[in-house]
Amino acid sequence: MAKIILVGGGTASGKTYVINEVVKLIGEENVTHLSIDDYYKDLTSLSMEERIKVNYDHPKAFDWPLIKKQLIDLKNDKTINKPIYDFTVHNRSEKFVELTPKKIVIVEGIMALVNKDIRSIGDLKIFINATRERRLLRRMDRDQKERGRSVDSIINQYFSTVQPMYEEIIEPSSYYADMLINNDGYDNKSIKVLAAVIKALINGEME
Amino acid sequence: MAKIILVGGGTASGKTYVINEVVKLIGEENVTHLSIDDYYKDLTSLSMEERIKVNYDHPKAFDWPLIKKQLIDLKNDKTINKPIYDFTVHNRSEKFVELTPKKIVIVEGIMALVNKDIRSIGDLKIFINATRERRLLRRMDRDQKERGRSVDSIINQYFSTVQPMYEEIIEPSSYYADMLINNDGYDNKSIKVLAAVIKALINGEME
Repeated sequence: MAKIILVGGGTASGKTYVINEVVKLIGEENVTHLSIDDYYKDLTSLSMEERIKVNYDHPKAFDWPLIKKQLIDLKNDKTINKPIYDFTVHNRSEKFVELTPKKIVIVEGIMALVNKDIRSIGDLKIFINATRERRLLRRMDRDQKERGRSVDSIINQYFSTVQPMYEEIIEPSSYYADMLINNDGYDNKSIKVLAAVIKALINGEME
Repeated sequence: MAKIILVGGGTASGKTYVINEVVKLIGEENVTHLSIDDYYKDLTSLSMEERIKVNYDHPKAFDWPLIKKQLIDLKNDKTINKPIYDFTVHNRSEKFVELTPKKIVIVEGIMALVNKDIRSIGDLKIFINATRERRLLRRMDRDQKERGRSVDSIINQYFSTVQPMYEEIIEPSSYYADMLINNDGYDNKSIKVLAAVIKALINGEME
């Protein structure tokens, strides 16, 4: 059976960066990597205007039954048809991607630890810490470069939904983590620590 | 050279419990274990009345130069004469204990991560999380049973020095940890995670 690793943490805490660095140490051939963001609800029934009003930083924006089903399938070494989310139209794409689990399935997302059913599927639960200032700056930088958004619109969204949901939903989910690491630009051994733990998981030392 | 592991965390976060459980998994024969509490300053020059007024929850209550010297000695595989602290007279005892480092030296204490020099000696820096309510209850229970203190005096000390120093000094030191684990009574894999990391450290996989 594949091992499921859940990686949560606030927006722009560096989840993807940490995972990419860890994968270099444990071997790409051992890892399937997916994001909770792929599982935003299918909003075909809503108009574009309605879609824009959705709070995408709230758990109810996600298709939890599908996440649960597909993670159980992956855990049982079954190939899944993973949805693809199209951010340009705020809706699930009509296309899917076939995903076959390797030894380790890493599931990342701000919501990775918030759902009890999903937590119970995880063989290892990780939370990535970074200070609020660092995360805000990283998000501003990313949303400007990758999504061409204005500073005003980024800051507005940050304080209207991102930050309140972090307080209410994301940060408290760190309580359920088996381990937390700091990723704040400060030089530490967090990447090596995480790689050592995942290697032990692959070798069956974490039962 | 011995590897130095620093284990910080708030009062009654369960540092000793976690370390004892981890030592069972990595083998007692590999571990030397000491506490920052052994290094309270020698207060022979103070009267008993003056000693009682000292804030023992502040970093300045500790003999940092001696901690630094002895940790460097341990790291270099040298035997030390570790001081012994006598809580009944609020002073360093006249006796010492010979301590020879094994592969791993675990140094625990609420102050384990607060001093920059000491952090730089640590090969691995761990912070133990537990909620404030849980820590207060554990401390009340322990100070009543082990030190015969009244509930009123425990609560008074908690809010006059323990809790303010946690806010100012201890909690911020978690920023420097390579990893944090939760020890709040919630069933998780933190003990196994920590054991896996220490085994990797022993095997030279964390350089």
